[in-house]
This record gives sequence, structure tokens and C-alpha cells, in this order.
Amino acid sequence: MSSECVFCRIVRGDIPCFKVYEDQSVLAFLDIGPVSDGHTLVIPKQHFARLHQCPAELCAELTSCAARIAEAAVDAVDAEGYNVLCNNGRASGQLVEHLHLHVIPRHSGDNVFSRWPSYEYKPGFADKIAAKIRKKL
Amino acid sequence: MSSECVFCRIVRGDIPCFKVYEDQSVLAFLDIGPVSDGHTLVIPKQHFARLHQCPAELCAELTSCAARIAEAAVDAVDAEGYNVLCNNGRASGQLVEHLHLHVIPRHSGDNVFSRWPSYEYKPGFADKIAAKIRKKL
Repeated sequence: MSSECVFCRIVRGDIPCFKVYEDQSVLAFLDIGPVSDGHTLVIPKQHFARLHQCPAELCAELTSCAARIAEAAVDAVDAEGYNVLCNNGRASGQLVEHLHLHVIPRHSGDNVFSRWPSYEYKPGFADKIAAKIRKKL
Repeated sequence: MSSECVFCRIVRGDIPCFKVYEDQSVLAFLDIGPVSDGHTLVIPKQHFARLHQCPAELCAELTSCAARIAEAAVDAVDAEGYNVLCNNGRASGQLVEHLHLHVIPRHSGDNVFSRWPSYEYKPGFADKIAAKIRKKL
């Protein structure tokens, strides 16, 4: 664990949190800068920065836990749906360098993620990109 | 499988896709309305609408697969980070009613998810919400 990491400090109990769930390997607590009521962070207790660096078994626990919490949070705040979002790297919006899944209860028209700037690939480009990714797998 | 579901039809091969990865239970292909080059959808072959309805083992496979694909896609398009996003329910932005994880390569300043409308809970409210979610778990 990094002594500077704010989530490691929350895991150790050095910083308080609004705890939602805890077991041996996972902790879940409210995001104190929520984008919707009940917005919860699900983290591994062990420090990993990114999803692809976290062992598969622990990723699985995180996902299961996030799904359970999503159901409970949607129920608790009477929401209609939820996002599970994992930002990896500063460019993606990750602010704390300790892997975390955002569980975000959603209501119709809440404008939380209102922008979805999709576009179309130019002809022939998608095929090239798919091939490039397959090659890196 | 639902015969109307567009992703079930892609799984069956009735609709073509730009395939990135396939195994017995998981299929990954490019989103044809990408928000960034290499934007990939990772889906279970079996039809489930929401993350919390999908068996834990399959969720685990999806997550592992998304993490591997994220690493490969970031490398393929020379990105700096990535999001893994799962929308559940129309209110959350889910457009196809077949569970899918978005893997979105990200570059600094790309403005893909530029809006993060966070706020603060009123004093005493966070505690109440956390207790309410814990009770539903």
C-alpha cells in the first residue's frame, strides 16, 4: 500500500468514509463528490492503479460487488438505472491512482452523462483498427 | 436469445461486425458509433439485459476480457488511458438491451466525457444514504 494514496488511507481507517460495504478484499463507500445521490466507489483493498493491473479474481470480486451495490443503490434512491464506470489514467478522468469502480444511480433526464460524442468511421478504417487491436491481444 | 436483439443477431452472425475478440462465452467488436477510435463493446454471448442479472462467473469473464482489450486498444491507437463503462437501463444511456461493456481509449483533452457534474451532500445526508444502501444489500 502506498502511504500517500488517499484510498489506501481510507482502507486503513486513517480517513473516514461513508461505508456501504466491506469484506476481506473489497471496500465500498460513497463518493463525497457525487454526480447522483448514492454514487458509490468500489475499490480493492490492495493498491492497484489500473483495471488491467488487478488480478482477474479480484476484478471479478469488484464487478460482482459493484453489481450488487448498484441494485441496492438503485433501490435505495429510487433510481431507474445505473452506470458502472472505471476510469483508467489521468486522460480518462481518473483522479485517484487507486483502482475504483464508480456505481452511479441514474434517473431519466438527470443529465449526468448527457454528452455522448459519437461519430462514424471513414470507410475501411474500422477494419484496420479492429485488426490492429486483435494483433495486440 | 431474443430474435429481435441486435447484439444476439451479431452473436449469431446474422449482422456483421468488426470483431476484436471471441471465445465460447464472450464477443468483442468495434462500436460503429464510436466516441474514440478503437471504442470496443464486450458482450456475453448469452442474452442478459443488465450487469446485475448476469451470473458472477460470466461477469468476471467480461471484466477480464474488457481489461485485456483495453490494454490492447490503448496500444493499438496510441492512447493514454481508457474507460470501461457499463450502462444499465434507458435512464443511464443504455440503448441496446443486451449487456455490454464499453471500452473507450482516451487521449488527454479529447473531451469525450468532459462533463462530471459533481456536487456536495448536505450535512447528515451522506450518512443516511449509505445506511439506506447497506440495508438493501
